[in-house]
Amino acid sequence: MPDKNLQLDGNGKLLHFLSIEGLNQPILTEILDTAESFTSITERNVKKVPILRGKTVANLFFEPSTRTRSTFELAAQRLSADILNLNVNTSATTKGESLLDTLRNLEAMQIDMFVIRHQDSGSAHFFAQHVSPGVSVLNAGDGQHEHPTQAMLDMFTIRHFKKDFSQLRVAIVGDILHSRVARSQIHALNLLNTAEVRVIAPRTLLPVETEALGVSIYNNLEDGLKDVDVIIMLRLQKERMRGALLPSEKEYFRLYGLSQERLKCAKPDAIVMHPGPANRGVEIESSVMDGSQSVILNQVSFGISVRMAIMSMIVGQSGLRGDES
Amino acid sequence: MPDKNLQLDGNGKLLHFLSIEGLNQPILTEILDTAESFTSITERNVKKVPILRGKTVANLFFEPSTRTRSTFELAAQRLSADILNLNVNTSATTKGESLLDTLRNLEAMQIDMFVIRHQDSGSAHFFAQHVSPGVSVLNAGDGQHEHPTQAMLDMFTIRHFKKDFSQLRVAIVGDILHSRVARSQIHALNLLNTAEVRVIAPRTLLPVETEALGVSIYNNLEDGLKDVDVIIMLRLQKERMRGALLPSEKEYFRLYGLSQERLKCAKPDAIVMHPGPANRGVEIESSVMDGSQSVILNQVSFGISVRMAIMSMIVGQSGLRGDES
Amino acid sequence: MPDKNLQLDGNGKLLHFLSIEGLNQPILTEILDTAESFTSITERNVKKVPILRGKTVANLFFEPSTRTRSTFELAAQRLSADILNLNVNTSATTKGESLLDTLRNLEAMQIDMFVIRHQDSGSAHFFAQHVSPGVSVLNAGDGQHEHPTQAMLDMFTIRHFKKDFSQLRVAIVGDILHSRVARSQIHALNLLNTAEVRVIAPRTLLPVETEALGVSIYNNLEDGLKDVDVIIMLRLQKERMRGALLPSEKEYFRLYGLSQERLKCAKPDAIVMHPGPANRGVEIESSVMDGSQSVILNQVSFGISVRMAIMSMIVGQSGLRGDES
Repeated sequence: MPDKNLQLDGNGKLLHFLSIEGLNQPILTEILDTAESFTSITERNVKKVPILRGKTVANLFFEPSTRTRSTFELAAQRLSADILNLNVNTSATTKGESLLDTLRNLEAMQIDMFVIRHQDSGSAHFFAQHVSPGVSVLNAGDGQHEHPTQAMLDMFTIRHFKKDFSQLRVAIVGDILHSRVARSQIHALNLLNTAEVRVIAPRTLLPVETEALGVSIYNNLEDGLKDVDVIIMLRLQKERMRGALLPSEKEYFRLYGLSQERLKCAKPDAIVMHPGPANRGVEIESSVMDGSQSVILNQVSFGISVRMAIMSMIVGQSGLRGDES
Repeated sequence: MPDKNLQLDGNGKLLHFLSIEGLNQPILTEILDTAESFTSITERNVKKVPILRGKTVANLFFEPSTRTRSTFELAAQRLSADILNLNVNTSATTKGESLLDTLRNLEAMQIDMFVIRHQDSGSAHFFAQHVSPGVSVLNAGDGQHEHPTQAMLDMFTIRHFKKDFSQLRVAIVGDILHSRVARSQIHALNLLNTAEVRVIAPRTLLPVETEALGVSIYNNLEDGLKDVDVIIMLRLQKERMRGALLPSEKEYFRLYGLSQERLKCAKPDAIVMHPGPANRGVEIESSVMDGSQSVILNQVSFGISVRMAIMSMIVGQSGLRGDES
Repeated sequence: MPDKNLQLDGNGKLLHFLSIEGLNQPILTEILDTAESFTSITERNVKKVPILRGKTVANLFFEPSTRTRSTFELAAQRLSADILNLNVNTSATTKGESLLDTLRNLEAMQIDMFVIRHQDSGSAHFFAQHVSPGVSVLNAGDGQHEHPTQAMLDMFTIRHFKKDFSQLRVAIVGDILHSRVARSQIHALNLLNTAEVRVIAPRTLLPVETEALGVSIYNNLEDGLKDVDVIIMLRLQKERMRGALLPSEKEYFRLYGLSQERLKCAKPDAIVMHPGPANRGVEIESSVMDGSQSVILNQVSFGISVRMAIMSMIVGQSGLRGDES
């Protein structure tokens, strides 16, 4: 298990952002509050503040991603950082350089902040363990471990629409077993004292240690959705079908797809979330995705403010300190 | 047919730039005049003005392109925009997200301006129909429909060298049938009151409705070039050969290639244009391409000023309003 | 052979940076001194100076590269340039456009500086011969010819750690025959009056004209390393194995790999260099690469300052002239 104290210094200040596990309620709340102050920037004529001016952010993506890479890039641009995009495919890695050599070389280029997505669980922690003091690492998804910025934008979205976590029932639906998003969300919801966190999934897609995470488990969608305030649908990785973990897409939708009909099981004002990209008609009905309870696109917008907040807290500027000169 | 009024607001101000069809003579002239004011920037020591400062331009290319993508990127850079490059290949689209979902997600990232190239005719209009107020769409080529910024840089080039459209004979030579460039050029030349627009092509490469476009049709190159002021050669898509629409490259050059010899049929001071990339020795002889009448490289240069003009008119700043602070 | 005077104007000022061959000792020393003044920037809070503000640098890479492309991009960013990244693969070139057409088109886009890497020897000179006055070309590696910025960062590293070239014995070990890096290094070491330059390689990996380069030749690693101050290991291109030029990797390491044991043949304070990416266990033992005598990561860091120096000298600003406003 990775060292949990990597992320915070002795005074509780954020050094890296690697996993929700190992963080605490005050720092999560500070991130949400700081992100709040950044949402106004995006409504201004000039969407830019000089917080990362003269700093270099490297986007190091070993797995392809459009949404996450773009929102990190936009967050860094709006903080006035210089950006180096590195899409590393396996063929480049087979050129004989290890992950550590790649890191060491990039660090020698005086990169200030690494945003890393990698197929191996623990790779972001590995990076953070090896960078020099003053260099920081942000986890943009590591294997099946965590995707903590996604979880924080989800928390921001929930707080924005539903205010007080201690009054909320939240259901996470789908492939919990393989989902780094779900893992991060559960940790965050627990840290923020959510009244009840439910996971709803077929038995084959639940990790064995699920109960240890402090969640209620449901195998039936209708039962699980009853009276919830927030529904988080997970993306169904279609390749799971082949692994015999799941029946057909049609059958999956019949059992675990969120339809208009089923949405009625939840509270009338429940919000519907999805980390994207969604498979319309597989885990979620199109009309629900585009419906009045869906806040899926708000999640994307908030994702930029949340990433700006985390980046600015790491460089030591908590929130918005005036305009670009 | 796409809604023509998408591009202009009630006061005739430019909102999107999707097709020449649907625009009018005053707006085309305003673009040319505005571009004129930008040509001086490129001769300055600091090639930058702050017109798009703090705005985000997304280059969304579903078809690969070096020239068009680069000139849009440079135009946006010189207007001080932040730029997000998204090269979407089909494999990414098959991840299950529709074009509309892609749009909605990017829009949620507070993109101000989309530059889109897509293989489907009408895709730029589709985008423009679905973006929120304040977000604009520029068509960088949609299927076989239009490529309006290319047409505008061609008009700029013609006006630069030949002044008054009402005195000009312009010939467009080659694969009119499949050319979005030709379609946009014909509309623009007509709107600008060009004295005569000729198309010169084999019958197999002429659209059936050509005459309705208000052009003269020639199947013989020498006849068509007689007394023209401007010759626009189109790129021969080599894949047309396989479609049995055309004989061999050699035969095509014999019939429709622009040689030094044939150039003499035009006026002695006729200019030669090509949208690039040219197939030397197929549609145009190398010595003509590099000759004194060729303005092909001027077209590329003017392309940046024209794109800067269109972008700045859309954000409401017509022309050059002072230096970068 | 390319024209050597392309790189310097009548007053000895740098116009292009194409090869070490054809340059002189004063200009090399000026580059090293200028780079020295840039190393401090990278330690500052805002790593940016406005020397290339409003200029456009095009990174034109016909061969893939992460390290070299990234350091050029970071150097240009820290000089406040606008950057256009063009990764040209062969498929794009087969679209029918020659290298010269590509150049002409990019030049028409008012690019100020081209950084070019190309598989053909002489391609950077070819570019420089054809660009307009005021446009400059930097060679980021051309075939098996030269890689002059790599050599200059190596010279910077040697001077940083060892001061006076006239007192130094330098050994270059490995595949001299195919190495553009070695060729540039030998020229630079000679111009800087290095006391002795040795090349150590199997006979099959030595160019026939090696002795004409003014170096001592060794086929035995222990003999060659005796009393040297600087050891430069070259990357072993694994594809050479197949060409029957070399035995197995294991055999190569046994004969020419730099181990802890062999390092003892050199002076006790000898430094170990490698242009990267290194094959651990093939040309260099892991413990040597990570050992106290290795300055391999320093080379990467210095590479940015050296490239900033060359770029700024070309635009006429030798060294650091004040901060970004």
